[in-house]
Amino acid sequence: MQMYDLIDKKKKKGNLTREEIDFIIKGYTDGTIPDYQMSAFLMAVCLNGMNQKETADLTIAMANSGDRMDLSKITGVKVDKHSTGGVGDKTSLVLSPMVASLGIPVAKMSGRGLGHTGGTIDKLESFPGFSTSLTTDQFIANVNKIKMAIVGQTANLAPADKKIYALRDVTATVDNISLIASSIMSKKLASGSDVIVLDVKTGSGAFMKSYEDSLALAKEMVQIGTIAGRKTYAVITDMNQPLGNMVGNNLEVMEAIHTLKGEGPADLLEVSLTLASYMLLGAGRAASIEEAKELLKETISSKKALEKLAEFIEGQGGNSEAVYNTDLLEKAKIVEEVYAPGDGYVTYIHTDEVGMTSLLLGGGRETKDSIIDLSVGIKIHKKLGDPVLKGEALATLYANDQNKLNRAKARLLGAYVIGKEQPEEKPYVYAVVTKDGVLQL
Amino acid sequence: MQMYDLIDKKKKKGNLTREEIDFIIKGYTDGTIPDYQMSAFLMAVCLNGMNQKETADLTIAMANSGDRMDLSKITGVKVDKHSTGGVGDKTSLVLSPMVASLGIPVAKMSGRGLGHTGGTIDKLESFPGFSTSLTTDQFIANVNKIKMAIVGQTANLAPADKKIYALRDVTATVDNISLIASSIMSKKLASGSDVIVLDVKTGSGAFMKSYEDSLALAKEMVQIGTIAGRKTYAVITDMNQPLGNMVGNNLEVMEAIHTLKGEGPADLLEVSLTLASYMLLGAGRAASIEEAKELLKETISSKKALEKLAEFIEGQGGNSEAVYNTDLLEKAKIVEEVYAPGDGYVTYIHTDEVGMTSLLLGGGRETKDSIIDLSVGIKIHKKLGDPVLKGEALATLYANDQNKLNRAKARLLGAYVIGKEQPEEKPYVYAVVTKDGVLQL
Repeated sequence: MQMYDLIDKKKKKGNLTREEIDFIIKGYTDGTIPDYQMSAFLMAVCLNGMNQKETADLTIAMANSGDRMDLSKITGVKVDKHSTGGVGDKTSLVLSPMVASLGIPVAKMSGRGLGHTGGTIDKLESFPGFSTSLTTDQFIANVNKIKMAIVGQTANLAPADKKIYALRDVTATVDNISLIASSIMSKKLASGSDVIVLDVKTGSGAFMKSYEDSLALAKEMVQIGTIAGRKTYAVITDMNQPLGNMVGNNLEVMEAIHTLKGEGPADLLEVSLTLASYMLLGAGRAASIEEAKELLKETISSKKALEKLAEFIEGQGGNSEAVYNTDLLEKAKIVEEVYAPGDGYVTYIHTDEVGMTSLLLGGGRETKDSIIDLSVGIKIHKKLGDPVLKGEALATLYANDQNKLNRAKARLLGAYVIGKEQPEEKPYVYAVVTKDGVLQL
Repeated sequence: MQMYDLIDKKKKKGNLTREEIDFIIKGYTDGTIPDYQMSAFLMAVCLNGMNQKETADLTIAMANSGDRMDLSKITGVKVDKHSTGGVGDKTSLVLSPMVASLGIPVAKMSGRGLGHTGGTIDKLESFPGFSTSLTTDQFIANVNKIKMAIVGQTANLAPADKKIYALRDVTATVDNISLIASSIMSKKLASGSDVIVLDVKTGSGAFMKSYEDSLALAKEMVQIGTIAGRKTYAVITDMNQPLGNMVGNNLEVMEAIHTLKGEGPADLLEVSLTLASYMLLGAGRAASIEEAKELLKETISSKKALEKLAEFIEGQGGNSEAVYNTDLLEKAKIVEEVYAPGDGYVTYIHTDEVGMTSLLLGGGRETKDSIIDLSVGIKIHKKLGDPVLKGEALATLYANDQNKLNRAKARLLGAYVIGKEQPEEKPYVYAVVTKDGVLQL
């Protein structure tokens, strides 16, 4: 087999066999296929597409390119949730303890990644002493005992995806649905969970801005998961504004805790409950979404989920006091408000720009080596459709550097559009994609 | 300007400006744009195309990427001819002395290249002592005095094309008309002639197998040449069988000499006369093709062209005796015939395979370092439409190695298709493309 012929085949709109895709992924991972051949191939894929079978074969080949997490020693059906990324997205912190408190094992592998805030691991470091450097044995023991543990992503998880992603990033071959779906799903498959619930964000703060693109990505990923033998659900949720009111690491931890105490914002609660319901459904713990939601709500009112969060943090060496007293979480030194420039309604939020504001304040990583300031962030006061008066606070910014704060204020102000007409309300959740089709909500 | 954005632009079917194309060619030539970005870009070009302006800008940028031949010290309108390549193509050897003998300067730069026989330079080395290692001054002096000289291609002629071609060759991005046309034309523009006559071959032995593709390539190249300010003509000629009867270096030299003596095959003569006529027309030496052909035929009957060939060879240090006595050309040791396996007509010739037979005998280069055996080759006895009887000789093979000969015989036999129906005769010349349009012949 020759890479040349496979590039040529895709260029001529041919469909690649599993053996051919395996050859490409193996060869590119071990370096026998050079970057310049791979990038020509990726461009041909971007322009001529891949069918569902090719996409699934590609995903499985990438999942097999490195270590695979062996979760066989964990009792029960393992469930995992993955988000395509959004601003203020702290659902993992809310739903994981809820689901675990119902006895379903949540064995999470998480990366730190780049972005406007840290990843789940960074956020959990708000709790002094908390560590994700567990051995595999410790990790499995914790999941079996506590039903919830989180470990850092191993360097050798789906290395083909890592290498291909880096190449796509410099060759304008990022925005192809098969390549996006296979990149996400290869890591999920290698992480070993039985049930995968995907939170596909849609809107101004999401990777996929339009509902149609988000739906296409959701379908593609569910198809891949199903072909690979995993129960897979994709929930399409709104990202036309930050989820909840808090953006920034400690602030998001605080909001997650409030939500587990029954005092969280409605959107965050609803999205978390919906995602968690599909985790329960997949695990066979509930027969319907309605039943699942009732079970989950009960974990809040009974405080079982909150206690599970504390237990989980202690299980990984952390001090869980802040779970019961969020005042213990570190706070930024400078707190200032951003004021509305005129009267009207919030008609649009450039949610990406809210994320950039958090990054400017120091809450996220610009490069792999950036150090995150956990205490900075944004508290949103005005959300889509809210009436505002000139001079009213749109948001409060938490900063440790006056210069950064000044730039952040201007940026946040630019993210808001104030208009005369109150816009239609956006739903929190749009649709759910399962192997059987699309359920519009 | 960022290469990433330019790849993305072409991926999205955008048109690149001259500045953008210059940026790409300059960056790739000097190494600041890596192979993997260039190959992604080339694939996007293959799949989304380039318009005529982009193609011309690309060609001019590549022509400007290295040294340009300065022919300004040569008196008169300089003319050049280029062939897209075929089997048995010795038209350069025939038409150059004809044109030069009419006082029109033929300043030729030629490469050795890979292929089933050597290039024009290799063929000329049949004459003992002949050399193309002239200084620029010697070259120009010879053209001014003799009106004909040939020099080896400088290493730094259109280096961007050389580098891009090598990349296309390993990334399945060869077969795009804009890239093919710009590759050929960049070298022609850099070589500095005022008039460019292109011989675009079409058929089973040509790079372009179909007439439509050949016409498209011809149009593209004429367009480029015209935009670049050169008088450009493209003649589409038949390559469904070898041109003339001889394939192989010394054999082709012999056939060219016979043609200059008025004893050549009709197809070779007609193609050479047509191409040369456009050289005369471009140089302003004739007002019509008919007039040009009469002038050219006269150079044969008067033996002026033959004498010009001898003069040219002497001018570059060669012994021209063989021009008057072709028996002096070195001959292969083993001569064997290939016989028809049955009765019928020659209905098809896999002309590429005839070329491969020559390569097998040792007459061409498989790699850059191969040494060519000038004495081997093929004499064709049966051409398209000829009736054959079982056991009649289809061709004679000239070899220096019995093993190679045996393999060559089988290969040549496979190139012939003998059928019951006499096929329609193919024209020698199909059409001429000028800046004003297509002239069907």
